[in-house]
Amino acid sequence: MGIVIKNALAILPQGAEDVVQETSLYIEQDKITGIGQAPAGFSEDKVIDGKDKLVIPGLINCHTHSYMSFMRNVADDLSFMDWLFGTIDPIEQQMTDEDTYWGANLAIIEMMKSGTTCFNDMQMNIHQTTRAVKETGMRAVISRGLVGSGNDEAGQMRLRQAYEERDAAKDCDRLSFVLGPHAPYTCDEDFLKIVAGEAKKNGMGIHIHLSESESEISQIKEKYGCSPIALAERCGLFDVPAIAAHCVQIDEADMDILAKKNVSVVTNPASNMKLGNGFAPVAGMLEKGINVCLGTDGAASNNCLNMFHELSLLTLIHKGTGRTPQCVSAKEGFRIATINGAKALGMEKEIGSIEVGKKADLAILDLNTPSLTPRNNLIAGLSYSANGSEVDTVIIDGQITMENRKLLTIDEQLVYRKIQEIIERMGLDKKVY
Amino acid sequence: MGIVIKNALAILPQGAEDVVQETSLYIEQDKITGIGQAPAGFSEDKVIDGKDKLVIPGLINCHTHSYMSFMRNVADDLSFMDWLFGTIDPIEQQMTDEDTYWGANLAIIEMMKSGTTCFNDMQMNIHQTTRAVKETGMRAVISRGLVGSGNDEAGQMRLRQAYEERDAAKDCDRLSFVLGPHAPYTCDEDFLKIVAGEAKKNGMGIHIHLSESESEISQIKEKYGCSPIALAERCGLFDVPAIAAHCVQIDEADMDILAKKNVSVVTNPASNMKLGNGFAPVAGMLEKGINVCLGTDGAASNNCLNMFHELSLLTLIHKGTGRTPQCVSAKEGFRIATINGAKALGMEKEIGSIEVGKKADLAILDLNTPSLTPRNNLIAGLSYSANGSEVDTVIIDGQITMENRKLLTIDEQLVYRKIQEIIERMGLDKKVY
Repeated sequence: MGIVIKNALAILPQGAEDVVQETSLYIEQDKITGIGQAPAGFSEDKVIDGKDKLVIPGLINCHTHSYMSFMRNVADDLSFMDWLFGTIDPIEQQMTDEDTYWGANLAIIEMMKSGTTCFNDMQMNIHQTTRAVKETGMRAVISRGLVGSGNDEAGQMRLRQAYEERDAAKDCDRLSFVLGPHAPYTCDEDFLKIVAGEAKKNGMGIHIHLSESESEISQIKEKYGCSPIALAERCGLFDVPAIAAHCVQIDEADMDILAKKNVSVVTNPASNMKLGNGFAPVAGMLEKGINVCLGTDGAASNNCLNMFHELSLLTLIHKGTGRTPQCVSAKEGFRIATINGAKALGMEKEIGSIEVGKKADLAILDLNTPSLTPRNNLIAGLSYSANGSEVDTVIIDGQITMENRKLLTIDEQLVYRKIQEIIERMGLDKKVY
Repeated sequence: MGIVIKNALAILPQGAEDVVQETSLYIEQDKITGIGQAPAGFSEDKVIDGKDKLVIPGLINCHTHSYMSFMRNVADDLSFMDWLFGTIDPIEQQMTDEDTYWGANLAIIEMMKSGTTCFNDMQMNIHQTTRAVKETGMRAVISRGLVGSGNDEAGQMRLRQAYEERDAAKDCDRLSFVLGPHAPYTCDEDFLKIVAGEAKKNGMGIHIHLSESESEISQIKEKYGCSPIALAERCGLFDVPAIAAHCVQIDEADMDILAKKNVSVVTNPASNMKLGNGFAPVAGMLEKGINVCLGTDGAASNNCLNMFHELSLLTLIHKGTGRTPQCVSAKEGFRIATINGAKALGMEKEIGSIEVGKKADLAILDLNTPSLTPRNNLIAGLSYSANGSEVDTVIIDGQITMENRKLLTIDEQLVYRKIQEIIERMGLDKKVY
């Protein structure tokens, strides 16, 4: 099927810059096959009128826990360790496979409706997020969260689950897999080394939480005499393509390790503020040449999976902490939310920008909206005034998954009902009425 | 005309708390006349089905410059004084009355579509914002920005304009007026004293920018040997009901003055970060019992007039700067964005909460949205996950101004065209394409 988006404004890479340009985009199968000019033999099955529209590469959410969406608003205003071990863990103990499936569906609805076309997910109940991804047409990189000590059975079982899930999803090329050791305070050094070895042996990447809270830093310093980043390095986790989420409490030496080992850092501004962890030194990391990308974290700690919200935070907070209005510009922010995410996932040849030969992962925004009026510096508009509701149509892997804000692959109302049933069953709806 | 919103969830004040409760709301003329029970003789002219809806008091934007909306994205990533004197001022020199009228319309569209029902505006071209407010059904408090030295003609002329505008708008009770001395760095001490005297004489309040940037503090310290807050006090500006916007660069002594003189402080988190001014000490001000309310500032410095965006920033950033997840809770944030704003404007008996006898200024949100699912702690949802696009219907002064996201009092498309014409005439559309 050939789709053409006619005469739209589009954000296109031009060398190191992004530019906004009026053009038409041609899509065949899963790919962009023409920009400005139809490819030879193009057959026009579907025309999308691009008048008053802005086409952007789909945003890439590089760190989330989609299943947690049913836990939105259940654990607010708590310190990090109380939040995790006092509230979230007990909920996770009573959570079924079905719960996580509906949670992932809710997450996908929220992300898709706000222009995210790919997410990097760490989860607990295997086959459920992959099932939701397959059904909804989303793109995702999945890691089964791994927790363990040395060679214990729990850790080994989780590793087996990770492979089992990967192998069962071979039929869907919108899905890929990395290994997800949870964090240095939930995995011991020996287990981290085992996971690093497994990743190397199997040609897989790593997705891990690192240096998120002050209490993590002091725990790891006390136990191992070094920072979580240094520990991860000495365990070999950075000898494969690695994505480190958070990196809030890091120093110069940590940043040098991250830069040297080409680790991609996912910054999660909302979650880091909400849990009282502070602000990651994003400006410093960018200066060191670290590939910084953007994530929402899960809805239990954000509580929002809207990447426009995160982009706005990213481009505002560092101007505030650094007292410099030039810090993390809108153009930098846009790259962080798109192509940098693709690089982190090892998919920069496939997604993250609008280029011929890349996957057709696109969000089409309505320009007849207050937040995108006037039509001047629209990349600034995406950071500073858009809220995600301007996204009108979404295409993933060449498939239209949302049109005129109607999701075509998900029954929204069914998902909302199922989520409500889950929290009522768990007694988590009692907080207000 | 009698409007009933049947069987909705509504946020109602219950002592010092707000609660979410299922109820029906009855509206006659401009007022809420019944909650849960129809008032005697109620005639039901219009029924709004409250199923799957949340009714909240309209948000109150306590500091903005609505005319500036046409300047969105024209002056990003600049330091405060370069932004104001290098970019905004030259644009204002070539701005016509019509331009400010359309700017105000764009601002009202953005605010209304995101649930704001009242705004406190400082503007330059008289009669234009009031014209837009009258036509659109909005509620506003207006101040003509005053700049002057001693008894100079410029200052006197602006004062006359302020009264002229107030007197010409007597027919519209959705409009009220205060005096708006711009700031201590654009008004000298003698002029500030004159304005304070005028306010006292005429029973009017004050709306002023105070202690926004570091450069303002050093300028005022050098010229007057005190802080901007102390200067404002000694000029008598706090002897009438006063609203001080920003108050970012303030110390303990400043806070004591603000508390003692019952000054309401409008915090504008996005603008303060974006211009590199930092973070207002909101937690400290709340501890001192200062009435803190919330504002977006103008679209030239935010660049967004969506109060949900601002509420999210308010409830996140202070957790980050203070490293305390308990700081500025969702419930506190909600009050800051509603009833505290009403108090600042001297209208707490009329607006800011859903109570019998108050004006019917309401926003009705769609709960069948990802950001407000599940339905548990919905006040947290408003702060941490809602983006404003959940607002489905807006009622101001008993009039339905938006229904099913369609504005009934404004021609949206016309406004977008007019704004584009303005920036093209000024050559401000050249920044990207």
